[in-house]
Parts: sequence; C-alpha cells; structure tokens
Amino acid sequence: MKLPETSDTIAALATPPGAGALAIIRISGPAAFSTASSFLAPAQRDPEHSAARLLSVKNGPALVDRAVVVFFRAPASYTGDDTVEITCHGSPYIIRTILNLAVKSGARPAEPGEFTLRAFLNGKMDLAQAEAVGELIAAGSAGAHRAAITQAEGGLSAEVRGIRTALAGLLAEIEARLDDSYEEIPALETRAFARRAAAARGKTLSLAAGFGAGRGIRDGVKVVITGAPNSGKSSLLNALLGYDRAMVSRRAGTTRDTLEASLDIDGFSILFTDTAGLNARAASPLEREGIKRAEKAIALADTIVLVKDASVKESPGDRRAERETARLALKGTRLLRVLNKADLLTGKSRRAPGCLLVSAKTGDGLPKFKAALVAEQKKVFRDGAQAVVTSARHFAALSGAAAELAGLEAVLKKNRPPLELAAEHLRGALAALASLLGETTPEEVLGNIFKNFCVGK
Amino acid sequence: MKLPETSDTIAALATPPGAGALAIIRISGPAAFSTASSFLAPAQRDPEHSAARLLSVKNGPALVDRAVVVFFRAPASYTGDDTVEITCHGSPYIIRTILNLAVKSGARPAEPGEFTLRAFLNGKMDLAQAEAVGELIAAGSAGAHRAAITQAEGGLSAEVRGIRTALAGLLAEIEARLDDSYEEIPALETRAFARRAAAARGKTLSLAAGFGAGRGIRDGVKVVITGAPNSGKSSLLNALLGYDRAMVSRRAGTTRDTLEASLDIDGFSILFTDTAGLNARAASPLEREGIKRAEKAIALADTIVLVKDASVKESPGDRRAERETARLALKGTRLLRVLNKADLLTGKSRRAPGCLLVSAKTGDGLPKFKAALVAEQKKVFRDGAQAVVTSARHFAALSGAAAELAGLEAVLKKNRPPLELAAEHLRGALAALASLLGETTPEEVLGNIFKNFCVGK
Repeated sequence: MKLPETSDTIAALATPPGAGALAIIRISGPAAFSTASSFLAPAQRDPEHSAARLLSVKNGPALVDRAVVVFFRAPASYTGDDTVEITCHGSPYIIRTILNLAVKSGARPAEPGEFTLRAFLNGKMDLAQAEAVGELIAAGSAGAHRAAITQAEGGLSAEVRGIRTALAGLLAEIEARLDDSYEEIPALETRAFARRAAAARGKTLSLAAGFGAGRGIRDGVKVVITGAPNSGKSSLLNALLGYDRAMVSRRAGTTRDTLEASLDIDGFSILFTDTAGLNARAASPLEREGIKRAEKAIALADTIVLVKDASVKESPGDRRAERETARLALKGTRLLRVLNKADLLTGKSRRAPGCLLVSAKTGDGLPKFKAALVAEQKKVFRDGAQAVVTSARHFAALSGAAAELAGLEAVLKKNRPPLELAAEHLRGALAALASLLGETTPEEVLGNIFKNFCVGK
Repeated sequence: MKLPETSDTIAALATPPGAGALAIIRISGPAAFSTASSFLAPAQRDPEHSAARLLSVKNGPALVDRAVVVFFRAPASYTGDDTVEITCHGSPYIIRTILNLAVKSGARPAEPGEFTLRAFLNGKMDLAQAEAVGELIAAGSAGAHRAAITQAEGGLSAEVRGIRTALAGLLAEIEARLDDSYEEIPALETRAFARRAAAARGKTLSLAAGFGAGRGIRDGVKVVITGAPNSGKSSLLNALLGYDRAMVSRRAGTTRDTLEASLDIDGFSILFTDTAGLNARAASPLEREGIKRAEKAIALADTIVLVKDASVKESPGDRRAERETARLALKGTRLLRVLNKADLLTGKSRRAPGCLLVSAKTGDGLPKFKAALVAEQKKVFRDGAQAVVTSARHFAALSGAAAELAGLEAVLKKNRPPLELAAEHLRGALAALASLLGETTPEEVLGNIFKNFCVGK
C-alpha cells in the first residue's frame, strides 16, 4: 500500500455525516489558504492565524452559507501544514457544495486518517500518539479513554524512549570497544553491563505485560459465563446487569444460543457472553449447536466465570464443566470460580478456597464479584503506570525488543562474550522500539494503520 | 407550551451524534464563560473574543481532551448571549463527559432549537429568518437551499417589511383624519388611496402565490404518474430515473402497489409515485387495494402526469383515467398530459393540443417532459423573486393580510367610506405581517416552531 501524496491539499468533512446544527470541513496542505479563499468572501489575502471569522461561502455569485472560518498557519496546526477549518450549517447539501468548491479549487478528497498521517509525517506526533487519536475517538469507557488519552499525550512514547535511551547508552559502550581507534578503553565490566541490560528488559516486559489487561481496557473485557446446566448462569447475568437480559426457568438448558450483553464496571467495559450449559448428554441438534457456540466463546474469552450451584453437592455436570473449561480455554485466560445460589444455603456455606460465593437472587456477593471482574484492569491503573499497552502492534514490538535483550543477556553470560553479537542484539531491540514510535515503520504498515481511521481525522 | 427560561446557560452537542474526527459543543447564556472556564485549562479569566485557542478539558485532575475553544462575547455571537464553542475529538465518551462537566458547572441541556430561539428573542434575527435556519439544514436540493438561504438572509422579511411600510403609511393617513386635532387636513383622496392599497395587496398576493411552487421547492414536488393500465407508466418512470425502479411487463397491471422514487431535475427535488392503472374491472382484492392507494396518491399530488398510449386509439380506460383524475385531484393540482410510446407511431403522430409526446423507449421528448415538471418552480426563481414562500405559516399570514386588504378595498368603494373600518382592516393586515416576522407571535406558536429544530441549533 502506497501512502497518499503529501504535497496535495486535502479536504474532508470532519464531523459525523448527517444533518445537524453545525458541521466542520477541514482543508489542509500547501494550498489550503488559497483553496479556501477562492470561495470565501470577503477575500482573505493574509488571514490572521487562529482567529474565528464569520465569512460568506460563495458559489460564484450565489451565497452558499455563512460560516465561522479559522485559518491555522503552518506549523501551528493539527497537521503541521496550513489548515482551514470551516464551521458551516450541518446541512448535507451545504457540506457537499463546499467540498465540491474545495475540489474545484484544487484540493482533493482526503483519505481516511490522512490529516493525522500528515501530523505524524510532519513530526507533530509520533506513530504511537497518532494511533491513539483513532483510539481516543473510539473509546467507549472511562478506562479506554484514559489509556487512549495517555497514549495520545505521549505517555507510552515517553516510557519507550526511556528504555531506548538506556539501550543506546549500552550500545555506545560496546561500539566504542569494537572501534579500533579507542584502544585505551578498559574492557567491558560484563556483570554490571548485564545488570543494566536486565533492567531494561524488565521495563520492556513490564510494559508488554500490561497488554493482557490493556486489550480488555480498550475493547472491553470478554467474560464468558459457563458451568453445568441449571447452575444459574443466566440468573447471575441478569443480576449483574440489573435487568432481565436472559430468559430464566427452572428447567435445565433454558439458554440455548449464546447471549451477549455489556456492562460498565468502574469505568471498564465488560462484554458478557452467557452460554448454554456444557451438557454432555445434549439430545437435540439445537442443544448441540448451542454447546458448540459456548465452546467457541470460551476459546475467545479473557475471563471465564465458572458457575456452580452452592446449594447442592458437586455434580458430574460440575466436574464436566471444569474439565471442558480447562480443555477449551487458551493459556493465560483468567478463571473465576463462582458458587451461586448462596441464598439456598442452610447453616454453613459450602465454601471452597478461591471461590466467590454469590446469590443472584439476593445480590449477596455481587459487588465483590464485579470488582473481581475488573481487578486486572484496575491494577494496571493503580500501579500508576504512565501508559498501558492496548495495541497488538505495540505488544509485538515490545516483545520483540525483550527477546533481543534476552538474547543479549545470554551472550553476556559467556566467557569472553562476543561483543559484535551483543551489539547486534542491542540494535535489534532498538529497531523494535523505533518501529513502535514510527521512526522506521514501512509505508505498508503506516498505510494499514491510517486506513482504519475515519475520513476527516 | 411555555418557552424555556432564557436566563439559564444552556449546553448541547451541535454536530450530528456518533463518532467522527471532530465534534462541537456549544454553551450559551449569561454564565457561559464561567461554566466553560471551570473545566478548561489554562484558566480563561478574560478570554479574547473570537480567538481559537487549543485548551485542555479537565475533569478534576484528569485530562479529558485537548480542544479548540472559541469564546464569543455578547452580543457578537450566534445567540446574542455569551457563547463558547468547544471543538473536541468526536468521541461519544468525550462528548458525554464535557456535557456532564458543563451541567455540573451550572448549565442545563438545551431544548431543540433553543440557541436559535435565543437569537430570535435577542433580536439577532426575525422569526422568518429563524425558521429558515431549520430549513437551511434540511434543504436537500439546490432549489430548497436557495429558498432557505434567501429567507435566512432576510429576503422574505425584507419583502414583507416593504409591504408593511406601505400599509403603515396608509394607516397614518387615515389615523390623522380620525384624530380631531388635525382638522385642517384635506379629505382623503379615496381613489389614489385605493390604488395604493391595491398595489400592496397585489404584492402580498404575489408573495403568497409563490407558495404553490415554494412548497414543492422545499419538500420536493410530488408527481403522481397515472393512466389506463398498460399505458407504459412504469416504463416512463424508469426512463426518467435512468434505472429500472419499477418492474415492467407487457401484461397490463404489472404495477400493483404504489412505487416511489425521487429525482433531482435542475436543482429541484421531484418525488415520483407510480401507481397501478385505474382499472375499473380490477378483480382481485390486491388490485383493488393498489387502486385505492393510487387514488390517495392522486389526492396528495402537486402534479399529476396522465399517461396515454400514443400508438393506439383512445380507449375506455383512457377516458376512465381522465374522469377519475378529475374527480380525485384537489383544486389547483397541476395536470400534465403525456402521450407515451411515440416510437410506435407510424406516419403522423397522434398529437393532441397540450399533450407532451414522449417515448420511454427511445428517450424522445423526455428532456421537454422533465423541464415541464419543474416549470413552475423555475418560474418562481426566474421571476427574480427575492424570496419564495415555502412555509404554510407564512402563506397563512400573507393570505390573511391579503384578505384584510380586500376588505379595505371594499370599504373604500363605498360612498363616503367609514375611515374607522378602513383603519381596522389596515391594522388587521399589519398584525398578520407582524406575526410572520415574529413580532406579535404567541409563545405557543414560537414553541411549536422551535421544537421541530434539532438540539444544538
């Protein structure tokens, strides 16, 4: 994928499509001022930077609209190029007419994400920040928003740059010793050097480790509720949501298809999937299909909630659900064990270590259960991390850097470590970090990142 | 309906809902600056009028977004009150958060149209102009846009004010003669006075007369295609649209339900309804239902296109369609007679006066037919009218004024016309015009006008 031409002047609607009170049309590029001036009156020869002016939009002699226009002079604009923002009435007809006027005067319609791509290419932000702009718009929960705005403000980039500075220092020390002209330099103190490399790897891994929770922060934590038939999975879902999402009956196997629902817990978005019970003796094709879907959901889950009925003895169904969950869940999936129907307990509760005792009926134990669902996400923020990794691309880059540093440490453990090899590992780690920041990112990767943006951003 | 309180500070999203690159939140009212300043950083003590500034939106210590903020100082704002426009990222989460911050700081969510209502109440625009803002946003064709922007710019108001000035002059002359203290004033020259009254009535009627075409300009011209079965109505519709909207077959009665389609002709929006043929011998309930719908469409039409097959002799079906159309159409509905299948003519054409000869198959005659469909709308603009009446409310006000002026002329025809009565008619006409401009419009009418606006306008 080739990146779009950056010397063009581009134009696009920056607000959502449809009718509204107001809309913003953005024009940016070397000819932005003259393009906009060609249809604005009175003529703006030398427009003042960043002053809002009520101007007429003219199509030849005909008045199209009166609009508030702001001229931003390069580099003090979003893109870093000359930019004009026209706030017109939110009429699809007027928007179309103004975009046509802009194109007639030499602009071309912008590609998705092209304004932000230019901001990146003009050095207004690094790639991680640019990516965060898209995430900021999409963020639907307080947690996702916090992760995105921190990244947009350069929080993640600063952490990565910190690691990079340390690695660049290490590399300089090795390169000095590889260079014949510095013969008098003392030999490398391998042990101290290895400690510093290990510290950098620790920081890299710690950032990467946030991705487990970070993905859930950005996209919502995928929680699958499973367990033996009639353990009260649907009642539990309804109790969590506070309304009757799922049909509930005393008959085992009431839920057949998977049901989905979302809930905001403490600013984190949780995406629940309620499943049919994992019943081995499912008779009808319908039931078997439901179980197939449940199995698929389990394989995709971030967290599995395994529900048992606290009021009866552990059943073969419970044991089967336990076995099946272990078989289907991917490594790293979190498992929460819940004993439901606590209200039916008489005398002492059936309490198993590591199990949450709840009652979907009375609500007992639900607050604790909810808190457990977002514990990992909360931990990421509570740890005071300046940045949370929410993107698979960043996770891959950090993991790549960590692997190179692990390789470096292995080299350093050798007797008379080969410095050239150590330098290679350091260069590999630095390249991985540079790609995260977009300094060495191929056009194709850039193209793929920005094409997922909306037009006008 | 009570009008909302105008001393409050109001806030709303002014751009369409949904995710986009940018969104605008508008805050207006006496406390707009302090409300916005409470969550903006750095603090804006004495913000410069109409300067665009990149500021931080803060929710306590947390950064919500970086936004371009413009402060408009009363009365130089859209509403006439202090107004703040915040252009933030178009994230539903961020929008919600900023609106919540505004409400926490004392603003309340704006009612639909409340910003424009304030502009009207603050004398920034008259009622006809305020109404045009809603029409400007909704305008979907060049014609509708031209009518709306002319009205928003005060074109209609200026025409109405011109008539009013003339009437006020007439009233002053009568009132002077009713006032005993001006005894030396010569008697009214009734004939010259009546001529001036008639001229004013002529202008009023001419404005009102534009409503016939004006309604079509604003909402689209409703054109119903009817005629005997198998006269080629659906083929004609397809040929007009340039694509196969309607199913066509040689069998009479292929079209059963009414079909709708719209087309832009020379900047005017045309809404076609293709109907089942008006077949008396319709056998099935389905056919009878189709004919019932056709009859209803005819009664609502602005223009009826009556199609006959040019290649055959006039049939009983043709005559029946003619009769039924005359029976069903409202007075004032335009009738266009079209002879279709011109391509099947051999030798001389069957040409009837006032009929358009077309061929849906070859396209012959279609350009002329299209021009005929928008002839009335074009005429309104060609006549160089500064304003087109598109609103039933304005039409009613103008008709009311004209009726009073007709009453005045009748009074003036009497021998020794009773001047008190003449004055009453003039006052009635002036009141009707004042209500159009919103000077004497009851709160209830105002409330109904603005509640149809979108929120944020």
